[in-house]
Amino acid sequence: MSTEVVKIENGDSLPEKRRIEEPEDGAALKRIQTPVAQGDSVGRKVIVPTCAPKLHYTPLKTGLCYDVRMRYHAKIFTSYFEYIDPHPEDPRRIYRVYKILAENGLINDPTLSGLDDIGNLMLKIPVREATDEEILQVHSKEHLEFIEKTSKMTRDQLLKETETGDSVYFNNDSYFSAKLPCGGVIEACKAVVEGRVKNALAVVRPPGHHAEPEAAGGFCLFSNVAVAAQTMLKSYPESVRRILILDWDVHHGNGTQKAFYNDDRVLYISLHRFELGRYYPGTINGQYDQTGEGKGEGFNCNITWPVAGVGDAEYMLAFEQVVMPMAREFQPDLVIVSSGFDAADGDTIGQCHVTPSCYGHMTHMLKSLARGNICVALEGGYDLDSIARSALSVTKVLIGEPPDELPEPTKDPKLEAIEMIDKVIHIQSKYWKCFKRKYGNAGCNFSEPVTDSIVSKNFPLQTAIRQEQFHQLSRENGFVELPIEKLEIPDDSILCSSDLYERSTIIILVHNTPEIWAKRDAITGAIDPASSVIVDSPLDVIKWALDRRYGVIDINIPQSLFEQDNFSAVVTSQEVVLYLWDHYIKYIPSLSRVAFVGVGDAYAGIVHLLGHRDTRAIVKAVISFVGRKQLRPLVPLVDESLSDWYFKNSLVFTDKNHPCWAENENKKPRKKYGRVLRCETDGLNSNMEERFEEATDFILDSFEEWSDSD
Amino acid sequence: MSTEVVKIENGDSLPEKRRIEEPEDGAALKRIQTPVAQGDSVGRKVIVPTCAPKLHYTPLKTGLCYDVRMRYHAKIFTSYFEYIDPHPEDPRRIYRVYKILAENGLINDPTLSGLDDIGNLMLKIPVREATDEEILQVHSKEHLEFIEKTSKMTRDQLLKETETGDSVYFNNDSYFSAKLPCGGVIEACKAVVEGRVKNALAVVRPPGHHAEPEAAGGFCLFSNVAVAAQTMLKSYPESVRRILILDWDVHHGNGTQKAFYNDDRVLYISLHRFELGRYYPGTINGQYDQTGEGKGEGFNCNITWPVAGVGDAEYMLAFEQVVMPMAREFQPDLVIVSSGFDAADGDTIGQCHVTPSCYGHMTHMLKSLARGNICVALEGGYDLDSIARSALSVTKVLIGEPPDELPEPTKDPKLEAIEMIDKVIHIQSKYWKCFKRKYGNAGCNFSEPVTDSIVSKNFPLQTAIRQEQFHQLSRENGFVELPIEKLEIPDDSILCSSDLYERSTIIILVHNTPEIWAKRDAITGAIDPASSVIVDSPLDVIKWALDRRYGVIDINIPQSLFEQDNFSAVVTSQEVVLYLWDHYIKYIPSLSRVAFVGVGDAYAGIVHLLGHRDTRAIVKAVISFVGRKQLRPLVPLVDESLSDWYFKNSLVFTDKNHPCWAENENKKPRKKYGRVLRCETDGLNSNMEERFEEATDFILDSFEEWSDSD
Repeated sequence: MSTEVVKIENGDSLPEKRRIEEPEDGAALKRIQTPVAQGDSVGRKVIVPTCAPKLHYTPLKTGLCYDVRMRYHAKIFTSYFEYIDPHPEDPRRIYRVYKILAENGLINDPTLSGLDDIGNLMLKIPVREATDEEILQVHSKEHLEFIEKTSKMTRDQLLKETETGDSVYFNNDSYFSAKLPCGGVIEACKAVVEGRVKNALAVVRPPGHHAEPEAAGGFCLFSNVAVAAQTMLKSYPESVRRILILDWDVHHGNGTQKAFYNDDRVLYISLHRFELGRYYPGTINGQYDQTGEGKGEGFNCNITWPVAGVGDAEYMLAFEQVVMPMAREFQPDLVIVSSGFDAADGDTIGQCHVTPSCYGHMTHMLKSLARGNICVALEGGYDLDSIARSALSVTKVLIGEPPDELPEPTKDPKLEAIEMIDKVIHIQSKYWKCFKRKYGNAGCNFSEPVTDSIVSKNFPLQTAIRQEQFHQLSRENGFVELPIEKLEIPDDSILCSSDLYERSTIIILVHNTPEIWAKRDAITGAIDPASSVIVDSPLDVIKWALDRRYGVIDINIPQSLFEQDNFSAVVTSQEVVLYLWDHYIKYIPSLSRVAFVGVGDAYAGIVHLLGHRDTRAIVKAVISFVGRKQLRPLVPLVDESLSDWYFKNSLVFTDKNHPCWAENENKKPRKKYGRVLRCETDGLNSNMEERFEEATDFILDSFEEWSDSD
Repeated sequence: MSTEVVKIENGDSLPEKRRIEEPEDGAALKRIQTPVAQGDSVGRKVIVPTCAPKLHYTPLKTGLCYDVRMRYHAKIFTSYFEYIDPHPEDPRRIYRVYKILAENGLINDPTLSGLDDIGNLMLKIPVREATDEEILQVHSKEHLEFIEKTSKMTRDQLLKETETGDSVYFNNDSYFSAKLPCGGVIEACKAVVEGRVKNALAVVRPPGHHAEPEAAGGFCLFSNVAVAAQTMLKSYPESVRRILILDWDVHHGNGTQKAFYNDDRVLYISLHRFELGRYYPGTINGQYDQTGEGKGEGFNCNITWPVAGVGDAEYMLAFEQVVMPMAREFQPDLVIVSSGFDAADGDTIGQCHVTPSCYGHMTHMLKSLARGNICVALEGGYDLDSIARSALSVTKVLIGEPPDELPEPTKDPKLEAIEMIDKVIHIQSKYWKCFKRKYGNAGCNFSEPVTDSIVSKNFPLQTAIRQEQFHQLSRENGFVELPIEKLEIPDDSILCSSDLYERSTIIILVHNTPEIWAKRDAITGAIDPASSVIVDSPLDVIKWALDRRYGVIDINIPQSLFEQDNFSAVVTSQEVVLYLWDHYIKYIPSLSRVAFVGVGDAYAGIVHLLGHRDTRAIVKAVISFVGRKQLRPLVPLVDESLSDWYFKNSLVFTDKNHPCWAENENKKPRKKYGRVLRCETDGLNSNMEERFEEATDFILDSFEEWSDSD
């Protein structure tokens, strides 16, 4: 037997001396069966005495604010109709949330009367009236006095205030009832900050986030969350230096925003539907470019949905790309969620589709901030079942459950939402490092600032591209420019075959600047010119026309992606095409047949011409590739029958996912748009590739010619 | 007193009849003090009986696998040196993790001997040997037999196998010890899947993720996690359809990847340092383009760090941008973390800086998947303190704590990491919807597929840009082309002032294609040509030179951002500059003074010339703007003293964050690179703007002229 100086394992020490035996008959070495007491490096046994778990969060309960007295604030009914269809800000809202928590065993309160001891998971936080001093941290004296007055008003006075108010109602209990949610949210935040509960849910009404310092509004009397936030900042200046208020109510929290617009201690992030003047509150303050003022500049973030129907995909995208990076950079000490559930699936006021599991996921993500110090306060939410389900999901995550899986995790977010989130990041990149990487400074995908001197050294890409197109066409096909000074467009906007005046058949293309497909540097965002290509699909049409010995006119209308509906480019297209027709095309001597091919927004010019002039003697076919752009209706100013003629002699190809197909699968767009057909692909270039033969055959057919393949 | 038919609040019903009194003396209305029993809509009292909480997760404990018998596998010492500096895969590793859990009260086991009852938070999962059948789901019979043989080998045989193995060691206990972690991870996953624990931590060794089906390696004998995953898929086909294996060990888990490379039921995501042939395992399988094969194509994701020193910023970025979107789309039923802690701050093998709170954050994010079903199994990690701290942080989050705040949340990720993550997303966009939006298809920032026919219709942007530059210079300054057929470059590569041959002083600029700053459509990725600008900073120098009546030669070297080190462009630059000197510049009759201005990678051509020819009679100054590009040393082939001369007569400006300043703040780059100066800004254009005066004054000084301002 050989021995080796090897220490046998002994806790923190290396394995100590053991004998390695040469096996006899292949028998395995006997193993040490009994675990050895663990020891440290000098052989002393280490004892780690049992101690209380060093956990600050898990042993605590989740706080709950609820009080039946918040149900007293109610609308005075003036008709029996209001029994059947009551005001949405209904006293039952908080009751339904409380009930579903009980039904799921999260609280024990069989009669749902609001007991103090509600079990092992949640801790009742007593609700009290907010003091005048607390309320005056946010509101003006006048506003407080006004709300106080309502407690003594007559019925007629109350009805009058309800009538003239900005979507509010009052009864004699309103003043008292409105101080309760205020005090409730304060106490809930306090319990979280003081470590008595790990997090909290404040099931309160009336809501608060629309109440501005000087005015009630939108069912809100006092700004509960704002008052609570101010109180925390004031009472715990050491431990609460920064607060994140995350407002996922489907309406903009104008009151909260106003309360902290100049304050850098509070980061206000709101996700809401925004339609200026049309969706409550609808003021400009809710726009995504409102980023704060003075000290508070950079600490306000409005993520606005321009359409209804957003849901999990959009909210998860916003959280991933905007909310969480910004919140992590802000490093809040406390998170307060203005938790309206009116974006929930089923809420007819919100008209959105956020599922309970999505609220759960968002809560789970927010829990990773501020060491889990989060207080969720009810705001809006008007479908009783929806708010109950959603609140349950949030509460379970607060207690410690993982969120349920999203029902449709692979659904794509709406394009409008993607665009909007991009705009938000762009605007916020001025203030937040996490977005600078994506957006550099001042409006460009670039890490360098776009100073004036840099801008003066530049020239537009568009010019370079059209010139290159011209050189190619000139070189290979003898094309020439057709400059029209009167129209104030670049000389190379209109190019045509040199023998145009001798042709009897002409193809006229009207299109915008071709697209650039570019690879970008991941870091700087710079475009790599060496590998970028300019994709010029109309070129196929030109080649086909030249092969058939037709004349060709190619009209390029420069466009902007960033202009609203590309308005000026459309107007230019209309002017150019009309002018060309009136002053040139009509006068081509032996001209007998014309086909138009429009690509992109520029096709508006063709439709404009066809409505303003009777071109039927010469124009035989109109092909348009619209992509994702707006459809243009023919407005028959010359003769009513133009509409019919346009429908019979046109093909209008759209992207597969063009909005015109969204509403109603069976319903086709109306005839005034021409014969609209839906491609299998998305993207102008793919569309053109897919339908090239169909389009050219259609033209030949209208010319009463046949393709070579027939 | 007036009355109103108003129902008082009664549970789910509307508030019922109450009397509204006209106040007397302004006295407030008496409030209802006693809470009313809640009732439903027809006035019945609703009772919600106390029930058990409908929570599936929070009431459960976190499972723990730990067994002292896993300490027996140890390296046979052959020298005393190994006492002082033992093998990093040390038996004490698991002990230290167990100890820190006890010290923090997460388990109760005063003697650290591995008790069964360890308290209220964690549940001991008994560790057993994996059966042959289980092991053979992944490994070959030969491999299993080989490991089995080691239990009977002699000391010499063991040492020989240790020597010849791929970073493995064996002793007679290895076979037994290696079956334990295997069985342990199986049991841990089983406990999670069966709902006996909410999640689990398997504190095991030896690690497993390098063990391939046919070979041990990298301290690993059997592939613990792979065997467990296979077992789960086989034993619970209904409830475990898909498994995510997240491997955050700093080395690539080649064994795990191989086990599931053709399997679409297992998504393997690994974050690891990768240097082909230089960092273990260093095989091509660890490269980011390895995305699976056959059925498994698209279910393998390697996120590779090309450098050491990555930390929280890089890992959080990878999780936000790659791991979580992909994992959510995959919808796993179980998450297994191959948890090596060798990327942790303090691990000298990993040389990275991931903090314990970052591991906590990553765990928290993973908990939102698979309804919280997560099993964390130890792999590597070699600094005993680092792995203890990191494991503690992970365990606390598993138990239910929120993660601690990251110490440096605003730190920017390394540029190499940003680039790499971009490449990974690009490659994975072929298979995952969540990335398609960013990358479209086949290599372009675009949502349309880049088909061959589309490519054939395009032309390169670079051409258009240079032509436009030429036209401007030609129009405004009378520049002409200097075509050199021999060099096979475009005719407009070299432009010069028309009166070049009459000049005695010439400025020669050598640069790449100017950058394009473009706004991109958020959805399609298309560049907006209307608002894109080409930023041509060298133009400033040209204007200055023309103002001083110097001759100007402008040399444009087209570059590619995507070529490794821009190699061919650099070679072109060197060829062009040398050729121009030898065949043109030398022959300019009255030429007495030349200054070079290099911008970007193209400046390599200037440095090349200065080393290959003695130009000191004529070249007075050499200015270079390098930006972030590689510095080029002058190689003095003609005369040693050229180095000194270059240092005295050159200025080389770099970005503020150029890598050459990174290592050592005090140490300047060596003289052979010229006089290297650090700008305050980042970006070539900003650099040029910042140092324009300094550069031009330097040139004037070298010409012994003075600027107008002197």
